[in-house]
Amino acid sequence: MNRVIYADNAATTRLDTDAFEAMRPYLLEQYANPSQPYSFARQAKKALQDSRKMIADCINADPEEIYFTSGGTESDNWAVKGSVQRGDCRTVITSEFEHHAVLRACKKIETLGCPVVYLHPNKDGFITPDNLEAAITDKTKLVSVMTVNNEIGTIQPIKELCDIAHKHGAVFHTDAVQALGHIPVDVKELGVDMMSCSAHKFNGPKGIGFLFVKKGTRLSSYADGGAQEFGLRAGTENVAGIVGMAAALRKNSACLNDFQSRLLTVEQTLIDKLDSAGISYRRNGAMPRVPGSLSLSFPGTDGEAVLHRLDLMGIMVSTGSACDSRNTQISHVLAAINADELYARGTIRISLGKDNTVNDAEKIAEAIIRIVSH
Amino acid sequence: MNRVIYADNAATTRLDTDAFEAMRPYLLEQYANPSQPYSFARQAKKALQDSRKMIADCINADPEEIYFTSGGTESDNWAVKGSVQRGDCRTVITSEFEHHAVLRACKKIETLGCPVVYLHPNKDGFITPDNLEAAITDKTKLVSVMTVNNEIGTIQPIKELCDIAHKHGAVFHTDAVQALGHIPVDVKELGVDMMSCSAHKFNGPKGIGFLFVKKGTRLSSYADGGAQEFGLRAGTENVAGIVGMAAALRKNSACLNDFQSRLLTVEQTLIDKLDSAGISYRRNGAMPRVPGSLSLSFPGTDGEAVLHRLDLMGIMVSTGSACDSRNTQISHVLAAINADELYARGTIRISLGKDNTVNDAEKIAEAIIRIVSH
Repeated sequence: MNRVIYADNAATTRLDTDAFEAMRPYLLEQYANPSQPYSFARQAKKALQDSRKMIADCINADPEEIYFTSGGTESDNWAVKGSVQRGDCRTVITSEFEHHAVLRACKKIETLGCPVVYLHPNKDGFITPDNLEAAITDKTKLVSVMTVNNEIGTIQPIKELCDIAHKHGAVFHTDAVQALGHIPVDVKELGVDMMSCSAHKFNGPKGIGFLFVKKGTRLSSYADGGAQEFGLRAGTENVAGIVGMAAALRKNSACLNDFQSRLLTVEQTLIDKLDSAGISYRRNGAMPRVPGSLSLSFPGTDGEAVLHRLDLMGIMVSTGSACDSRNTQISHVLAAINADELYARGTIRISLGKDNTVNDAEKIAEAIIRIVSH
Repeated sequence: MNRVIYADNAATTRLDTDAFEAMRPYLLEQYANPSQPYSFARQAKKALQDSRKMIADCINADPEEIYFTSGGTESDNWAVKGSVQRGDCRTVITSEFEHHAVLRACKKIETLGCPVVYLHPNKDGFITPDNLEAAITDKTKLVSVMTVNNEIGTIQPIKELCDIAHKHGAVFHTDAVQALGHIPVDVKELGVDMMSCSAHKFNGPKGIGFLFVKKGTRLSSYADGGAQEFGLRAGTENVAGIVGMAAALRKNSACLNDFQSRLLTVEQTLIDKLDSAGISYRRNGAMPRVPGSLSLSFPGTDGEAVLHRLDLMGIMVSTGSACDSRNTQISHVLAAINADELYARGTIRISLGKDNTVNDAEKIAEAIIRIVSH
């Protein structure tokens, strides 16, 4: 394949080669089922324990608070659906611009009779503490607000929102799929009760993720069967996937500062180049933003057409989230922040990752300038 | 690691090296999110399509009837829980000796008010058509009986059971986790509406499986979010896992006759050796059985102790299913077939796989003879 400039890291990331090497023995040699009591299963079992500990250390949790899942969507579905009992009519509060894994899980629990309130973010792309304060009551059961928005990259004030939820006796869940491995995440400092994460967003493999569940949080089982994941999520563990996730997270966490500052430089190069060319655009979502995430709207253009022209130039970007890419309407995120329709239709999401260089940023900017100037 | 004789293939199998090689490019190079519309995602998308087709061909289904999941447990949970609506009090019928993924999913739906009938298998290890006929009514919604029992290897009369279910307007699900890749499975011939499968039981990777859902079968979504899996099971696809599953299944399916006859030879060697030593034992479960599966009970011994002594000799076997290995009671399967307690406590499960040789069988038999003769 020709070298492409991959700038869609919010959709998925390249598997780190060290993570792959960590996985390999668990794919090929140490294939035992970790639930078995014989010696051949010992290394697989130890790999699970070590991985759980490594992941817990990266987010300042205890290993017993890490529940392996098949990814972010499963984690989100579990957190939302597992918090609600049938016949319990206490409210769930979430936001209009969550990932569809949260939004559609909320739609599902509405059909079970559970009322859901959808908070409207402000035009800068934030759910503010005031916003939550105005909606929350002592009948609120669960508040779910994402840490980083997957389209516009805005970092939500999780600690403040979480404090408000707790003051009212509600449980707080955050979808941190776009945050973990990109910004520091400390569950004790944030105070969250549940947090969803997905390995393939931080250079781990696809098909594996986890849900952090703070000790004492009530959550019903997601998959029933064997005793895996403390009896709450049955199924033979994806040992290689788990090992790869832990290795990738540890690596990203260890070099987070360097990674962030490098991304900010690359990002700034792109913005500077667009600005000096004098082309008209808006950047969606205000600061604080996750480094490397750029949602740019070019008035009077069609985002999809820009995406395809960039593709022809070997540059991979997105219009919105990957999970919603078959939908050609304005994304629910841009609608939620009341983006001007003239701009919204001409939106692309550039999400830079570990492999992107200043040179990539220059090429992306040049390509965009060429496309939108004509 | 020293060469061990691995004879616990019903717990999990070694990943086929060709399947690993098929996965590798999707782990390392073709890492795009298959939902994305740009050229770099084309190969990942095609790999998904090709894998779905390959798997469908192996079981005589249409590709649109294959729904990728994270494994057998998820497939079972989905089939059972997804068939039942709240407030619907039509009965589910299953058997006492299903895998816990089915049994505990049934326990869960009982808490939602759905009545479940548990059929008692006969002492040979079968659910007979008469057995189902006696329990089924026109109010039965779902019948779920496994294709191959995971402890005693008995092959259930799925086609006959399925016909009875359909005659009464019920949907038929089978957990074929221990069957697929080991015996021929043709969903059209069997007539099943849903079938659960798990890659790591047929030399594919862990953490991936599928649910076959016949066109027109009503089933609610399992994970809500993105549009993956025809809108019923959201989440970025585990592309490498799916590719590995398809490669492993195709390989096993292509050499099924050879594989079966070789396993029968290995199995017979083991049995002959035990018989000629004149030691006392019973083999649980009558014919037809899946080749390579031996549940053997040695009166007056302790199965767990035998397992550990075999382990010390480098031989890996099981007492029951891996998912239940933390439970030291007599397994629910042996209890269901009314196994004599004197025998049941001294039970080990030997499950032979592709790598096992006649020499392995001799060594296993010799080791058992040495252990149970003293």
